[in-house]
Amino acid sequence: MTPLPPGATLGILGGGQLGRLLALDAARLGFDVHVLCPEPDCPAGRVAARHWVHAYDDEAALCRFADAVDAVTYEFENVPVEAVAVHEGAGATVRPGAAALRTAQDRLVEKRFFRGLGAATVPFEPVDDRDQLDEALARVGGRGILKRRRCGYDGKGQARIRSAADLDAAWEAVGGVPLILEGFADFALEVSVVAARDASGAFVAYDLPANRHRDGILWESTVPAPVEPEVAARAVEVARTAAEALDYVGVLAIEYFVMPDGEVLVNETAPRVHNSGHWTPEACITGQFEQHVRAVVGWPLGSVRRVYHARMRNLLGDEVGQWEALARAGEHVTLYGKRQVRPGRKMGHTVALAPRTGRR
Amino acid sequence: MTPLPPGATLGILGGGQLGRLLALDAARLGFDVHVLCPEPDCPAGRVAARHWVHAYDDEAALCRFADAVDAVTYEFENVPVEAVAVHEGAGATVRPGAAALRTAQDRLVEKRFFRGLGAATVPFEPVDDRDQLDEALARVGGRGILKRRRCGYDGKGQARIRSAADLDAAWEAVGGVPLILEGFADFALEVSVVAARDASGAFVAYDLPANRHRDGILWESTVPAPVEPEVAARAVEVARTAAEALDYVGVLAIEYFVMPDGEVLVNETAPRVHNSGHWTPEACITGQFEQHVRAVVGWPLGSVRRVYHARMRNLLGDEVGQWEALARAGEHVTLYGKRQVRPGRKMGHTVALAPRTGRR
Repeated sequence: MTPLPPGATLGILGGGQLGRLLALDAARLGFDVHVLCPEPDCPAGRVAARHWVHAYDDEAALCRFADAVDAVTYEFENVPVEAVAVHEGAGATVRPGAAALRTAQDRLVEKRFFRGLGAATVPFEPVDDRDQLDEALARVGGRGILKRRRCGYDGKGQARIRSAADLDAAWEAVGGVPLILEGFADFALEVSVVAARDASGAFVAYDLPANRHRDGILWESTVPAPVEPEVAARAVEVARTAAEALDYVGVLAIEYFVMPDGEVLVNETAPRVHNSGHWTPEACITGQFEQHVRAVVGWPLGSVRRVYHARMRNLLGDEVGQWEALARAGEHVTLYGKRQVRPGRKMGHTVALAPRTGRR
Repeated sequence: MTPLPPGATLGILGGGQLGRLLALDAARLGFDVHVLCPEPDCPAGRVAARHWVHAYDDEAALCRFADAVDAVTYEFENVPVEAVAVHEGAGATVRPGAAALRTAQDRLVEKRFFRGLGAATVPFEPVDDRDQLDEALARVGGRGILKRRRCGYDGKGQARIRSAADLDAAWEAVGGVPLILEGFADFALEVSVVAARDASGAFVAYDLPANRHRDGILWESTVPAPVEPEVAARAVEVARTAAEALDYVGVLAIEYFVMPDGEVLVNETAPRVHNSGHWTPEACITGQFEQHVRAVVGWPLGSVRRVYHARMRNLLGDEVGQWEALARAGEHVTLYGKRQVRPGRKMGHTVALAPRTGRR
């Protein structure tokens, strides 16, 4: 596809904070943005030239949306694959495409995909009924996390299993849908690769952040991560291989466990901009949101050079009330325009910068 | 005023590119934006939560707008003072207020204001009819520029007078409205101060850019400007004094002529973010658009520390077609979403960054 000229319209499926931040950067590049999302008052809809309030399975609306925009992307991976397939069927440019979405939506498909590329993961077993669970637990090492294969995020749809005694409760909590049992990894730290690939196959990766979670929700990303260059290089190489295998166009993220011996295990992936890359707009020449837009509309990728050390923290639930103190302290505050504060809900984030020193 | 909390609504009078870039940064801070502007398809309206399409003299609409938003600002100085006064009369927080607007709208009032502060300007004379013109020309030095006092921008409403022989043609071109005749200044270079003042009186100024114009339109700003620190300090001091005299809240800009001996003459001012500050989002910790929003909503000002050397160029008219080559060359491209290309029209701008070296 030739690059979309300024004035063209970018369609975004999904109306959350990632869509909002994508829409802002798309507008700065001269594009109009249309957002399709079922909620009438969503964060992205309020910064878009047009907000289409429709369900993701409203095929007639999806077809009209496909006609109205020049390229389509999605801002979260639980958009139905069918919604993306409708667009592809209508001849629309959808980036990343349905294949990447299909892979990311199902934890089992995703893990098998990475194993197929030769990447390491935690041990895992598919679990479709209660009877399979005991044997699966033995095979993954006697403890693990039982997860929904689909539609899980931020620790939702998961149950921890410390021993066989927990199996019934875990099944009670999440059973009845296709599941995956993942073994524990006694990792030294968690890192992620946020990378981008354009339609010509060019690939770039940001410096890796180290990530800390609270209650299954990302809480803090700091860059640079304290890992050896070879460890970072292996993680980036897995991301590159995956992006090429999927003929991926856009920003993608892969979360890894780094083991004490330096081995990197793929934990999970996202076919989109990612919370652990929220420090990039402030700390790098080109941030992840602009980068994703550039890839989707066929522009050349921007530089991922990192100018600062950075520490990003999410503002979860009531923490959003800290905005004033944080702004006063010189942190870069980004807030998502969500109307309701709920415990653990991602309301915004802040980025603190520090000068780079020495070799790092 | 206590700081507006995220989720509050910022009203912007005016729908051009400055309003668009203000709206994007306001949204990133968590605010909703309403834009009021008579054109139905304006750049800022397409990124706002609500676009009010009304004339600036539609008092009923202005009153409803004042009720719907929590604070108001304006993005260009040719918004009628009455529109701002209506808001102030309705008890709305309008920043900067009507006083700053009134001063900036009339070149004669503006120049007298700065003279009253002890600042230097080019020689000037009011000209209300043809008869006054000959004597005025003699008083400003035998040559000059005849300008409309009001509603001029980007070199419009001006006529150059090289000698008395040009007087009739100049009068023909711009006469019939209140005018000002400004003497020429044989300046060494043009610079500007882009500064901000908050409601508590805190004042900050960005490093000064050197500006080059083409056909009366700003074409290029480069920072740092090649001026001695004492020259820059004098220019900043004039800006601080003016901001305090007006009890100004928001970003303001003052363009100066720098004379060969280092004297600085106030040329013109803008009670708003300014084209010559378009490099600040890329090159500084806090850009001028976020800075203006922070001042208007009562947040603390952000750091104006400059991280890079920068060169901003406008994309005028057809030059917008260069976006792809410039993006490919690594320049930061911002485009305004204007539907029609017209000669000399500001369609976007690009910023090239370079590392700071040595003491500068």
